[in-house]
Amino acid sequence: MEQALQYARVSRERYIRELIEYLAIPSISSDPAHKEDIRRCAEWTAGQLRDIGMENVQLHSTAGHPVVTADWLHAANKPTALIYGHYDVQPVDPLDLWEQDPFTAAVKNERIVARGAADDKGQLFMHFKALEAVLKKSGRLPVNVKFVIEGEEEIGSVNLSAFLRAHKADLKADVSAVSDTSMWAEGIPSITYGLRGLTYLEIELTGPNRDLHSGTYGGAVANPAEVLARMLARVKDNEGRVQIPGFYNRVVDLTEQERKLFRQIPFDEAQYKHDLGVAELWGEGGWTPLEQVWARPTFEVNGIWGGYTGVGAKTVLPAKASAKVSMRLAPKQDPDEIVQLAEKYFMDNAPKSVEVKVIRHHGGKPVIVPLDNPYLASATRALREAWQREPLFIREGGSIPIVADFKEILGLDTLLLGFALPDNRAHSPNENFHLPTFYTGIESLVRFLFYLSGEG
Amino acid sequence: MEQALQYARVSRERYIRELIEYLAIPSISSDPAHKEDIRRCAEWTAGQLRDIGMENVQLHSTAGHPVVTADWLHAANKPTALIYGHYDVQPVDPLDLWEQDPFTAAVKNERIVARGAADDKGQLFMHFKALEAVLKKSGRLPVNVKFVIEGEEEIGSVNLSAFLRAHKADLKADVSAVSDTSMWAEGIPSITYGLRGLTYLEIELTGPNRDLHSGTYGGAVANPAEVLARMLARVKDNEGRVQIPGFYNRVVDLTEQERKLFRQIPFDEAQYKHDLGVAELWGEGGWTPLEQVWARPTFEVNGIWGGYTGVGAKTVLPAKASAKVSMRLAPKQDPDEIVQLAEKYFMDNAPKSVEVKVIRHHGGKPVIVPLDNPYLASATRALREAWQREPLFIREGGSIPIVADFKEILGLDTLLLGFALPDNRAHSPNENFHLPTFYTGIESLVRFLFYLSGEG
Repeated sequence: MEQALQYARVSRERYIRELIEYLAIPSISSDPAHKEDIRRCAEWTAGQLRDIGMENVQLHSTAGHPVVTADWLHAANKPTALIYGHYDVQPVDPLDLWEQDPFTAAVKNERIVARGAADDKGQLFMHFKALEAVLKKSGRLPVNVKFVIEGEEEIGSVNLSAFLRAHKADLKADVSAVSDTSMWAEGIPSITYGLRGLTYLEIELTGPNRDLHSGTYGGAVANPAEVLARMLARVKDNEGRVQIPGFYNRVVDLTEQERKLFRQIPFDEAQYKHDLGVAELWGEGGWTPLEQVWARPTFEVNGIWGGYTGVGAKTVLPAKASAKVSMRLAPKQDPDEIVQLAEKYFMDNAPKSVEVKVIRHHGGKPVIVPLDNPYLASATRALREAWQREPLFIREGGSIPIVADFKEILGLDTLLLGFALPDNRAHSPNENFHLPTFYTGIESLVRFLFYLSGEG
Repeated sequence: MEQALQYARVSRERYIRELIEYLAIPSISSDPAHKEDIRRCAEWTAGQLRDIGMENVQLHSTAGHPVVTADWLHAANKPTALIYGHYDVQPVDPLDLWEQDPFTAAVKNERIVARGAADDKGQLFMHFKALEAVLKKSGRLPVNVKFVIEGEEEIGSVNLSAFLRAHKADLKADVSAVSDTSMWAEGIPSITYGLRGLTYLEIELTGPNRDLHSGTYGGAVANPAEVLARMLARVKDNEGRVQIPGFYNRVVDLTEQERKLFRQIPFDEAQYKHDLGVAELWGEGGWTPLEQVWARPTFEVNGIWGGYTGVGAKTVLPAKASAKVSMRLAPKQDPDEIVQLAEKYFMDNAPKSVEVKVIRHHGGKPVIVPLDNPYLASATRALREAWQREPLFIREGGSIPIVADFKEILGLDTLLLGFALPDNRAHSPNENFHLPTFYTGIESLVRFLFYLSGEG
């Protein structure tokens, strides 16, 4: 292990040169004009895997962009880790806000700046280099490793679930590892052990059969925009608790251990409010802001519209009003059940003066990695030793559907070992990655491979 | 009077020929391409006024389309009536829904079909022909008459208030008469004696300083779309009563006489619901639908928007949410006072988690013609005798700003003697006017001139 760590240290300049090459490929998955760049990026990824010593490197065509797989399976009786990442990137507009060409990486102030630097090429590349260090120095790995790398994460991983199902046997493993999340702050290694789930609905209310003159009819005919406001207003009580019957039934409360872990997180509420530009936070009573966004389910109005929304005044009593709403789900809540409860709630609570139509959009299951998962202990130790401080156990309020898929399709818990920093500007102009974190992170991944095997 | 009535009866064919000529001019005030047609229509109107024997006929240029005035002022010691109408018309699209060219009038099924047939050329023309009948048969009028006819009613009478102020002395009169409203139904003469006022606001709520990821922040940060829904939901209680403090302070209750008059109106609630396509009506408790739309103030959401409103799902916690809202005002409510009360209400009721901005749009005063106005009695008698049945006293839930201007600027009560029928399709394709109503209406206006003078 020490030799591999030493190898990683002396190879830093070359790592940066190679990463710059990787970042130079404009693999924007949402833009059909970049279809060939995406394929070129998949091929670069495959070439890299071959170069570092991985075996069975394959490019799989899908209905969309290619999936790259590889493995190294010669550690008999040792665990198998499935490493996931994605080689596609977000679009770059607004281009004029970039300080440089987004695909010509620049190093400044200890950061490498380019689209994909943090999300996710830079983080995925750290795994390549950790494996390379170990393979080059010892000719073998202490554990078995498989890779599944997609090119459609930024467009919703549309073909990955099907791929996982089709290659279930080939992807068999003991744990998966993903580096596509963030650390709490610079110098504070963090493991994301929980993600909220999601269910998303659209509600359309229809009142009169046409837009009415609000003078002629206003006062006698129910106004769908008002009815919608009343229906949405009632979803939460004054304490912010969701009133949909059964909503909280399966929610798993935080354990004492988790509450203790949460209390260790240096959350600065004043700074949080300042960053958001709000005078006051608001959420479910009895929970801290971190608990509210990480551990508690919520109901949000994502969009609302109806009637006249142009310039000036139009005295219309609208025929229709609509809202897009979603619920973030806490561990053990089931999106299919919640969507049914929510749909029933809106149907039951609509007055007879309007007709209700509910449209279901996508959902996703919440994820939690049990804190006593043995592989989590290996990762914790690796991070602790690399950074010389105790890692934080954090959660994320959003969803990473692929993580739920790993659990559901492959039966795997996922270790979310994220190395981005909160100011890395993923999805925004001047995306960057912090190089000291990049180097230390590679070393932590070297350690992780050894600790996972029980060695070291 | 009998001679004039006889004259009107024998002239019907000529009236229709002339009206077809008037309707042939495409005086669409909203369309700059028709600017010359508008002027031609003003000139046609002026020529008609000269032909029937009116004096001092003038075309006044304004910042927009011309105003036409005329008078006949030789009835010493008799009242002066100011007759208002408009010679401009609505656009004609969608053109493919017309059964004919909108400016080539056709007579079918006792109706004349063309743009402007009812709104308002046809109704204004009835005044011309009533006056012509009296002037041709007796060489004089029993009362003094002034005309003010505009070409911008369909675009909000933008220059008329200023015109009234500038010509206040010339337009001095005892009462004004306007035929631009509807009868309750065919064969039921109706006088509109009340109009609701209006005040219109836009409310903009700002929460966080940018759209947030609803997963990362949802649950801890107030969502402006939800706050807006809660604020709008509270404006009315469960009985539909507006909760803005002071809102009802000046509202004049219906008199016993008015309640009795309202009860005489053959309102068919089942038919009303059927026409609107709603299963149930909803409004302020304790009032009938007609009372709700005619005599009670209301609060309406005219438009609402915020967050993601495109296709599919986007998990955004919006930075902003907005609504356009208006209040229809009952007699004696003051739009300036109500707009202040409403603005204060929204400011006071917003939580600290959002910032509120209120934008004021236009307003207008409610109007009521006292049922003991002596000129109203003359109109009532004229309609009763022409139709051989008691006229209904109705109101209109919308506003006609010009009527409030007549009261405010010229000090005049307005007699709204409307002859359109509910199915005349004003503003829609195949606008039409019912000829038997047209003929009987002219006779009622002949009678009106005599009864106004105390003669006949």
